[in-house]
Amino acid sequence: MSTLMQSIEECLPAVNQRLEELVPLHDGLTATIHEAMAYSLHSGGKRLRPMLCIFTAQLLGRLPSYVLDIACAIEMIHTYSLIHDDLPALDNDELRRGRPTNHCVYGEAMAILAGDALLNQAFQTLCRVELPAEILLEVIQVIADAAGTTGMIGGQVVDIQSEGKHIEMDTLRFMHEHKTGALLRSCLTSAAIACEATTEERNLLDCYGYNIGLAFQIADDILDIEGDEETLGKPVGSDAQNRKSTWPALVGMANARKTMESLVDEAIQCLDAFEPSPARQTLVELARYTIERKQ
Amino acid sequence: MSTLMQSIEECLPAVNQRLEELVPLHDGLTATIHEAMAYSLHSGGKRLRPMLCIFTAQLLGRLPSYVLDIACAIEMIHTYSLIHDDLPALDNDELRRGRPTNHCVYGEAMAILAGDALLNQAFQTLCRVELPAEILLEVIQVIADAAGTTGMIGGQVVDIQSEGKHIEMDTLRFMHEHKTGALLRSCLTSAAIACEATTEERNLLDCYGYNIGLAFQIADDILDIEGDEETLGKPVGSDAQNRKSTWPALVGMANARKTMESLVDEAIQCLDAFEPSPARQTLVELARYTIERKQ
Repeated sequence: MSTLMQSIEECLPAVNQRLEELVPLHDGLTATIHEAMAYSLHSGGKRLRPMLCIFTAQLLGRLPSYVLDIACAIEMIHTYSLIHDDLPALDNDELRRGRPTNHCVYGEAMAILAGDALLNQAFQTLCRVELPAEILLEVIQVIADAAGTTGMIGGQVVDIQSEGKHIEMDTLRFMHEHKTGALLRSCLTSAAIACEATTEERNLLDCYGYNIGLAFQIADDILDIEGDEETLGKPVGSDAQNRKSTWPALVGMANARKTMESLVDEAIQCLDAFEPSPARQTLVELARYTIERKQ
Repeated sequence: MSTLMQSIEECLPAVNQRLEELVPLHDGLTATIHEAMAYSLHSGGKRLRPMLCIFTAQLLGRLPSYVLDIACAIEMIHTYSLIHDDLPALDNDELRRGRPTNHCVYGEAMAILAGDALLNQAFQTLCRVELPAEILLEVIQVIADAAGTTGMIGGQVVDIQSEGKHIEMDTLRFMHEHKTGALLRSCLTSAAIACEATTEERNLLDCYGYNIGLAFQIADDILDIEGDEETLGKPVGSDAQNRKSTWPALVGMANARKTMESLVDEAIQCLDAFEPSPARQTLVELARYTIERKQ
């Protein structure tokens, strides 16, 4: 991965290969947990988060390899959150991307530990990234804050506490901004820090990240109502079944769509300040993808 | 905490206060998870791990404040591991230190997230410690490696996989070294790195850490057989009930005691190379405490 990559398709094998290197299968006493970690890590994910990191680096004129390990660490955090979210005590989901969820294959105990291990492995990976130490610490801060109660976990908490309740738009917005938005946003910010972007560039990228993060989650709400079960790889209607408040439920489907589309437009506008380049075009496509995806 | 502390009793309030500052209670949407995190973090723990960090710093001629936040981060990791270990899918314990376990108070979903959040908060704390960046990254590496599948989680996996099975001494040793030993050992190593100890000092402290870590876990096995339920704050006999292999089960109670005592003697011998000081004396006491404790 030493040259510029023009497309997501070119990039995907490099991400998958690096994830295999960073979370390898093992023989010996801890074989099963490594298998459980790899099972969820390599389940045909779209690698949206790694792509955001990598094409941000390219947009800023750096090689994709520059942020590859940061990208993989964020994917580990994303994967751990899915494993824990699917647990019986949380969403109790049995299917994810068309395959049995981690605890259905490895049991609840192993799934809890595999999630823990992926979160921990993300930090084991991050603190070894070859960047100047001061910059790397700032990268770790941004990602850790995006993953914790100040970010993703904060959103998950509000999510489980909101089940079966009517919630206000402020609460729903908080939940969506934090549960999915925070980590997506950190892909942009961490890559910008790693690539020593200017403050202006960093703000623009952060703005792009914020907008696609929220749009992504509104799209998720819509997919859970209108999606195709087979393409989605999991049952539709689970939000309604778990009596979860969603964007369409609060403002109606037409308004939800409108908001989601404006958010993506705003995200794309944030990129206008950058010179036209294949990387900029890919980030435009990724922004559109967040709401046009079928799964 | 700006002067040398002569005793564990003097140190304890400083650790507890700093933990309260680092994991504060919150109003607002994420109030409950902060309460759940604080519930387990402030449950009358002995703070063995923070004490080991702090008195290592003092042994090396530094102020205790030098490693206070590292000490607190390790305590967060320890606490997260207890919350997840107690879950119904793992040890299914309802009492810990005489109080209902986290999931019994806050429910399983919140307990899983509170554990996740404490692990994450440990890294949020670590990457903000005021140390030169290069040194801090080495500290984070050591702690992350001690917490992951290469350390504590590796031990937990072997633990759950060994339930109800006869296991060999090699497997039991691996489990004990990793499940409790790795994180205890990282208290010494991380403090030594933070205080810029020489390689010889670092090796001696690592040796002390290894020995007390293993001794601690053998003592745990013995307490689960011979301990007093009320002092212990949890039911005795849970290892037998969960059909877990223990050190006394494999080699007999008398041999288990002998091994445990030799390990502590070896640990104390590692301290001989350091000048006599109150800190050295406290580390001797902490080594003895690991096997003389009643809970």
